[in-house]
Amino acid sequence: MTQTPAIDDILGGQRRALAKAITLVESTRDADRDAAQALLQAVLPHTGKSIRIGISGSPGVGKSTFIEAFGRHLIKQGHKVAVLAVDPSSPVSGGSILGDKTRMEELSREANAFIRPSPSAGALGGVAQKTRETKLLCEAAGYDVILVETVGVGQSEYQVAGMVDFFLVLMLPNAGDELQGIKKGILELADAVVINKADGDMAAQAERTRGHYQSALDLLGRRSDWTPRVLTCSAIEHTRIDAIWELIGEFRALAEANGAFDDRRARQNLQWMQHLILALVEARLTRNEPLNQRRRELESRVQSGEITPYAAAREIVALL
Amino acid sequence: MTQTPAIDDILGGQRRALAKAITLVESTRDADRDAAQALLQAVLPHTGKSIRIGISGSPGVGKSTFIEAFGRHLIKQGHKVAVLAVDPSSPVSGGSILGDKTRMEELSREANAFIRPSPSAGALGGVAQKTRETKLLCEAAGYDVILVETVGVGQSEYQVAGMVDFFLVLMLPNAGDELQGIKKGILELADAVVINKADGDMAAQAERTRGHYQSALDLLGRRSDWTPRVLTCSAIEHTRIDAIWELIGEFRALAEANGAFDDRRARQNLQWMQHLILALVEARLTRNEPLNQRRRELESRVQSGEITPYAAAREIVALL
Repeated sequence: MTQTPAIDDILGGQRRALAKAITLVESTRDADRDAAQALLQAVLPHTGKSIRIGISGSPGVGKSTFIEAFGRHLIKQGHKVAVLAVDPSSPVSGGSILGDKTRMEELSREANAFIRPSPSAGALGGVAQKTRETKLLCEAAGYDVILVETVGVGQSEYQVAGMVDFFLVLMLPNAGDELQGIKKGILELADAVVINKADGDMAAQAERTRGHYQSALDLLGRRSDWTPRVLTCSAIEHTRIDAIWELIGEFRALAEANGAFDDRRARQNLQWMQHLILALVEARLTRNEPLNQRRRELESRVQSGEITPYAAAREIVALL
Repeated sequence: MTQTPAIDDILGGQRRALAKAITLVESTRDADRDAAQALLQAVLPHTGKSIRIGISGSPGVGKSTFIEAFGRHLIKQGHKVAVLAVDPSSPVSGGSILGDKTRMEELSREANAFIRPSPSAGALGGVAQKTRETKLLCEAAGYDVILVETVGVGQSEYQVAGMVDFFLVLMLPNAGDELQGIKKGILELADAVVINKADGDMAAQAERTRGHYQSALDLLGRRSDWTPRVLTCSAIEHTRIDAIWELIGEFRALAEANGAFDDRRARQNLQWMQHLILALVEARLTRNEPLNQRRRELESRVQSGEITPYAAAREIVALL
């Protein structure tokens, strides 16, 4: 059984206690799961006092360099910054290319930065569930900016967008290029799009791209509370990083004033609870092998159109 | 108890039998539900041989006029056309502004057209479940084009996009105008956008708008199988309606050739089955008043951040 760290040590911001608590939360053993839940319940009153920022972008967009530049900018302003990652492809044996500290060498040396690689997949609710819990632990330990990086595999952007206050999509200056590799629907999640590598020869191109994306986002529907903004920056030259943080500040002030900030968190928690109810029901099915086998048969017959989804769902729920 | 029509009468395309079958499917009585399921299972081998087209658009965009022109064009080509509607705001007492036959006066007089108003909300899976079942009945009765109209309330576009082969969004010629009232995310669902009212003074404006939206859709992410297309038409003058049907034919030929057509339906069925499992579990909760009350308490505590979504979900599933 994994050791449970003292709650006061976590609240006091001790890095070793925080790391131990995260290890407990990431454990897939049943006994650890109960201890982790008790720990989370105990720290819960001390959580939530942060801004949670999701950061997405295709490989090659300069995500690590951006997070390093952005994180160091925030630390200089007196913030404590935690960097978490959601990588559903992360192997169960642990370890992930994301969060590899050598990627963010300078940030990882800062006393007020805490970088944690993606948890491995495999437990209930998957990587997203563990990252949500890790986020709470970091908040309890006094980190007031939580950056959640997504590698863009599978549903990871949706999962990250569902656990943050602000979702930022990084892009390259070459507008419309197929190489952007942006998945359909991702830009709809964005509270801001940031064109990175807006430096040197690419500065003018980046500005044109900024205009194109701003027009496209303006065209593609309005939101009552916030109009997504498109900015440019150069992470490598540390330029216009401050404007991004200012924009997030503007968003936060507005959302806190009109109640959207708390509403979004409440809605996220409720949706996640509903997701977990289904996951737990599924876990119950999975532990019961004959029932599990029946479900796979029904799913296959539903996919091939032999029975209706309703008939299949009803049989499964009756067997629960 | 509602009478069950003879299966042969439905398969023979008798309108009265079809209407009775739909009434049975829409009934909320438990006994009717079982009879409806048996009927659906019996007709299931005779379903699926249609193209299912979702049609969305804000009020004022000319949706009824478009469906009337489009439907009559298809009937002239020898098709049998069913028009269904998804309106979650439809009252439980039945009846809906959508599907009001006086809206589509000429189409409703056609022998090969069948127009059905939105079912009322209230039962398991809601309006979407009943519309899915009605769609199967219409297919069994020989309708080879199913048009599913959405009024754009709540999640209705997502529900309709999840039950059709092709999703079409109607728009007005005034690009970018706030009056378009397009909800965020809707255009991401579109397989085609059609700028209606491209006639008279608005023809040039409509063409410009077409260009803007085509660029925006091209920018906002690629799909492996299909690039959403933007067209113009005038439903009132019956112009370029044929081009829309040709585009859908092109889509269908391509999707059938590369397997995407069947894949999409299989995926839709599986996702709907998972949705219904949750809905059935919820129905079980709801029937158990003490448990239901406990859930509401837990939901409220999750929303206010007093307990974690996981702790709440675990308690609910343990009580099932």
